[in-house]
Amino acid sequence: MSLIPLPDSLRPFLHDYLPTQLPDRTFVTLTYAQSLDSKIAAQPGHQTKISHLETKTMTHYLRSKHDAILVGIGTVLADDPKLNCRFKESTSNSISSPRPIILDPHGKWNYRSSQLFTICEAQQGLAPYIIIDTSVNPTLHDIAILQNQGGKFIKRPLIHTSRSDSWKIILSTLYEHGLKSVMIEGGAKIINDLLSLQKSDDLINSLIITIGPVFLGYQGVSVHPHTNVNLNQIKWWSGVQDSIVCARVSTE
Amino acid sequence: MSLIPLPDSLRPFLHDYLPTQLPDRTFVTLTYAQSLDSKIAAQPGHQTKISHLETKTMTHYLRSKHDAILVGIGTVLADDPKLNCRFKESTSNSISSPRPIILDPHGKWNYRSSQLFTICEAQQGLAPYIIIDTSVNPTLHDIAILQNQGGKFIKRPLIHTSRSDSWKIILSTLYEHGLKSVMIEGGAKIINDLLSLQKSDDLINSLIITIGPVFLGYQGVSVHPHTNVNLNQIKWWSGVQDSIVCARVSTE
Repeated sequence: MSLIPLPDSLRPFLHDYLPTQLPDRTFVTLTYAQSLDSKIAAQPGHQTKISHLETKTMTHYLRSKHDAILVGIGTVLADDPKLNCRFKESTSNSISSPRPIILDPHGKWNYRSSQLFTICEAQQGLAPYIIIDTSVNPTLHDIAILQNQGGKFIKRPLIHTSRSDSWKIILSTLYEHGLKSVMIEGGAKIINDLLSLQKSDDLINSLIITIGPVFLGYQGVSVHPHTNVNLNQIKWWSGVQDSIVCARVSTE
Repeated sequence: MSLIPLPDSLRPFLHDYLPTQLPDRTFVTLTYAQSLDSKIAAQPGHQTKISHLETKTMTHYLRSKHDAILVGIGTVLADDPKLNCRFKESTSNSISSPRPIILDPHGKWNYRSSQLFTICEAQQGLAPYIIIDTSVNPTLHDIAILQNQGGKFIKRPLIHTSRSDSWKIILSTLYEHGLKSVMIEGGAKIINDLLSLQKSDDLINSLIITIGPVFLGYQGVSVHPHTNVNLNQIKWWSGVQDSIVCARVSTE
């Protein structure tokens, strides 16, 4: 399905929150869509449509502005996402797709049966970098398939590492691979970890949250940090249905 | 402390969500301020400043448009609220204060030590109607004090009644007392009950939520219905800091 046009007002609205070149680290944008009651899905393991088509276009616009897009294995198994970019500037002939980064410490993902694999076979997106724990050993066949598409497995010590150290390792891994900006889209565990670590570790640079005017209820999948987090440079936008809040989070 | 002026754009924004005369029931506006992670306080029993001064002015403007304002005993004990209206139209010499309704089924409130009592003694607000269960017996002295100010205790079967029936009783009690509109401000138990009953009992007419751009964290007091709730006629406003979403909820 093709995207509806990006609302004109969104481009200037988002401008100040797009990635900038940081001297020694990867710029992190955390972005997700939530209900009024702060749920990103109506129940665990299920994808729930929260945002309007115009904010879906925004997601693809944002993807076009990042070197990488990162999601956790929970989201991959629940949604089987395409993780490509379908936003194209009217002045351009090509689409700039971000590199998909899959955080899969235990090596649960069967990449070959995913939509992303099919998309990469059709050369409609970049092959993923799959970050796994050092204890996980993919088959030579799986390694070859991924390499053949331009993707790779990246082994890092994640399982027996604190959340704080894990995220430092993950983000420096991206930087080492020349990925200067990453858009982190979820799921809940990753969002909650990053928000919870913000006070101590200052990992997030930009925060872009779409709020859909609906309640998903008690059984929904919650997003919230463990402690309070204050935001800076807050700006709101509202469209046909949703509101979007942008903020800078870094203390830099 | 005096209020800052009502932002000009808020008056037309709120217009369609203000009470209208319903033929046979009290118009219910549910309104509260929450964080991005859907918390109305950083911890139980503590008042947390979430909204900006301009949305505080909005609360008083809304109070001026309602016959009554209802809060639960939890909020009264935590916040000792004044529950009066300090918004005055520039064209008017008088302030229209709503009737405070305190939902106190077990009769826990010591009214005489409250700020509201002091305000009523100074004739700066209306004395409360305190709705208690039929099993609760206030002292004659307490009854006399309240009556002297123009307030009263109202006994209704609440404790051994289902939440659904309790709310029908409460709202018909307001209607019987000539209160054609009520603004319900909290706390969390009341908000969650009303949102949860919406699908079956259709109690809320207007919903006005202020969202403060902050995370209060896991220990915060959550608002969410038990099941999903969809909203109609959604409109967003944003100010210096906060966003406000208005919606009609009634299926009428």
